[in-house]
Amino acid sequence: MGIIIAERINASRSRIAAALERRDARWIHREAGRQAAAGATHIDINAGSSPRRELDDMRWLAEVVQSATALPLSVDTADPQVAAAALALAKQPPVINSISGEKTRLEGMVPLLAASSASTVALCMDDSGLPEDAEGRVRVARAIFERLAAAGIAPERIYFDPLVRPLATNPEQVPHFLEAVRRIHSELPDVHTICGLSNISFGLPARRNLNRAFMALAIAAGMDSFILDPTEEGVMAAYHAARALAGCDQFGLEYIRYFRSQA
Amino acid sequence: MGIIIAERINASRSRIAAALERRDARWIHREAGRQAAAGATHIDINAGSSPRRELDDMRWLAEVVQSATALPLSVDTADPQVAAAALALAKQPPVINSISGEKTRLEGMVPLLAASSASTVALCMDDSGLPEDAEGRVRVARAIFERLAAAGIAPERIYFDPLVRPLATNPEQVPHFLEAVRRIHSELPDVHTICGLSNISFGLPARRNLNRAFMALAIAAGMDSFILDPTEEGVMAAYHAARALAGCDQFGLEYIRYFRSQA
Repeated sequence: MGIIIAERINASRSRIAAALERRDARWIHREAGRQAAAGATHIDINAGSSPRRELDDMRWLAEVVQSATALPLSVDTADPQVAAAALALAKQPPVINSISGEKTRLEGMVPLLAASSASTVALCMDDSGLPEDAEGRVRVARAIFERLAAAGIAPERIYFDPLVRPLATNPEQVPHFLEAVRRIHSELPDVHTICGLSNISFGLPARRNLNRAFMALAIAAGMDSFILDPTEEGVMAAYHAARALAGCDQFGLEYIRYFRSQA
Repeated sequence: MGIIIAERINASRSRIAAALERRDARWIHREAGRQAAAGATHIDINAGSSPRRELDDMRWLAEVVQSATALPLSVDTADPQVAAAALALAKQPPVINSISGEKTRLEGMVPLLAASSASTVALCMDDSGLPEDAEGRVRVARAIFERLAAAGIAPERIYFDPLVRPLATNPEQVPHFLEAVRRIHSELPDVHTICGLSNISFGLPARRNLNRAFMALAIAAGMDSFILDPTEEGVMAAYHAARALAGCDQFGLEYIRYFRSQA
């Protein structure tokens, strides 16, 4: 089964940064609750990247979000120390968001994954940068896969992110991305794929139209998970519609159930 | 270039039947004008199928719609006599909607196409019925293609409709449909493909979600034309978004232009 990581509790958003600053648990509660009600399976918590504050802020977010919802966390940090602190507070296995093929980041995170039952988002990039084509993405995914397998981490715990680049500046990247999704699923059985949906529409108007069309293509290619804002009107409906069309939901029963649950 | 055939002026809709009955040109004008403003390239006119009334009603619709908009007509009938009458009144080359591989229908329409510069929607079905798989659809398309080529009708004038069946009752039909679209474009160069978009969602709730996700998949498979209601909120935005993602619209310029034109 795929997951939906809800992205709103991110310190790069000014209202979240302000809530963090003044330790406003009510605001964070509200954001967590709304995202859970909208259909999230995991609540992402991103405490910014200031080395001075990130550790404390992440701890506070982990406590506050888990007091608002029973959903598991997605611990959004590149710092293994911060990830370890959140992992220690997690009431159920979280997703570590994210590792990559970059050597320091990967080696810092592997012990945490090996010592827990956390899952992880694994970005398809390494120390040589972001791959241009599908082959480059699959090569990085395979290297990460093998490193994690050697540490005893099951493929079901890995969510590969082939990295969406904005259509406006990289129109040729869409077919590479979709081919990477197809190849990761065919070459690395039992893993998941995920992406930050809204990156595709960066810099273009009426972004939700592009996000949803892109989601349909990604799901048809095999992608099962997304990082998105589930409170955005219509996005979860688009997700269930695309799943029904892709044959993940025979006769549209899950689609119908979704609409009944929202009625 | 693809086309958008606007489907609202159809006698199976009760308000259109009533407008036809009382020769209410104002109502038809309004429907034609709204669809043109929403981005249609052709206005479909369907006068019902009562043998007693269809000919007169089609003539009246052809006159009235052409007094409301300069867009070409899509003449929606299975009767070659009715099609001929509308063709005679058409101020610019219309689309005949539709022919099929059914022998009587095909042989009745071919002379009209040969004697005019009309285009045609060609349904991928024949006297043995609706094909179940992609291969069956492509076989019918090829037979129609050869018959039309023998009559001197250029491939650019043909819009093959692989026939969408409702997801709710035929979940296995989506991959067959999409494969048929891909194969028609690869095996019959220069033809177009088209479909009646809303058929996919028949019997399911919140239909527009399914329609739009399906449109994204169809466009990614190569489909360039649709029969739809362009006044439905968001459907033309979804069309332009899917085209941008499918690489039909480098850098999203057409997508941006669409949103500027709607602002």
